Amino acid sequence: MTPRKGQAKMNAEKIPDIIIGRLPIYLRALQRMSVQGMKTTSSQELGDYVGISAAQIRKDISQFGEFGKQGTGYSIPFLTDKLREILKVNRIWDVVIVGLGDMGHALARYGGFGERGFRVVLLFDSDPAKIGQKVDNFVIEDASQLVERVRACGIKLAMIAVPAAEAQGVADRLVQAGVKAILNYAPITLMVPGVRVQYIDPVVGLQRMTYYL
Amino acid sequence: MTPRKGQAKMNAEKIPDIIIGRLPIYLRALQRMSVQGMKTTSSQELGDYVGISAAQIRKDISQFGEFGKQGTGYSIPFLTDKLREILKVNRIWDVVIVGLGDMGHALARYGGFGERGFRVVLLFDSDPAKIGQKVDNFVIEDASQLVERVRACGIKLAMIAVPAAEAQGVADRLVQAGVKAILNYAPITLMVPGVRVQYIDPVVGLQRMTYYL
Repeated sequence: MTPRKGQAKMNAEKIPDIIIGRLPIYLRALQRMSVQGMKTTSSQELGDYVGISAAQIRKDISQFGEFGKQGTGYSIPFLTDKLREILKVNRIWDVVIVGLGDMGHALARYGGFGERGFRVVLLFDSDPAKIGQKVDNFVIEDASQLVERVRACGIKLAMIAVPAAEAQGVADRLVQAGVKAILNYAPITLMVPGVRVQYIDPVVGLQRMTYYL
Repeated sequence: MTPRKGQAKMNAEKIPDIIIGRLPIYLRALQRMSVQGMKTTSSQELGDYVGISAAQIRKDISQFGEFGKQGTGYSIPFLTDKLREILKVNRIWDVVIVGLGDMGHALARYGGFGERGFRVVLLFDSDPAKIGQKVDNFVIEDASQLVERVRACGIKLAMIAVPAAEAQGVADRLVQAGVKAILNYAPITLMVPGVRVQYIDPVVGLQRMTYYL
């Protein structure tokens, strides 16, 4: 049975991670095009926008169904909806932040989560001087309460912004609390079997560019 | 002519970007193993550490030469040196930060640059309330002086941490000043032909994990 036009194929399980990793980039570009008042785009135009070849974009998107029309390209609202559906960000995910140093504060105040599928709902730190302080409307809670609070709220996503030495311990407790995906800002590799981790490390970003200089 | 053992092959130009992107991850793991007192490792052990298969690691590293010994694995100091050489971080690169909001402050105070090949040397903001303030030992300078100051210092690397609406303009001026690689924290795709850009966007990191939840 071939999928109907515009309907996502159900073989999503087999999609390589590298392709999944590009979809949020496409989605970000489409949402920005939409803000600029654009209604349609082509794989060429989208490719120029994100620095990926038109052929690669067509190939990536075609993994999920036929979302464009020969000659007229992609409807931006339609493709946006489809990508949000594929990435499961056509809903709002609650997120917890652990570690309210400079980075944690930057994340807590980051304005770009809401419209892209996420909402920060809990903040934790272990520093008595920080516990009880507010960041915008949220109170920084005691990290010793992390497991029970995160579990009670049913949160599956966390951002870790604690020092490297504390990150593994925090990750262990987040996993214990039921967290299934971690965005890790601490410069260490976490050992959390069965849990997804993405790393945000400015040095890794810089080092993969110096090679080309 | 086959390369001598331990000597980097000179075909580095052809190495796929995806492999280059994994080398900083290996380097970070090796440096951490070294801190823990380890002297040697295997592709299996390194793979477990970073969540990449041993076969992939052997294949990636072998692109650059024969850096391990059958049966005894890799010397951590030797492989560390080789990776630093390949990535060109066996020297210190000067970096400029533009935008000293929460994120810029977090970056300016980040302790992990020095030992991994980078040094923040200039800070810029356009907010009169911030210009002249110090972050650790550095004074925040007026962004209107960016082009001449960055050019005079010969800086090739920049981190952009300004709001999305200002990021393209800042990028244009950095390129004008001679910058060749940008780590961009603003949630937009930059148009900077001929310049390397890496994006750091927490939402992209989260969105590529929700797919699997």
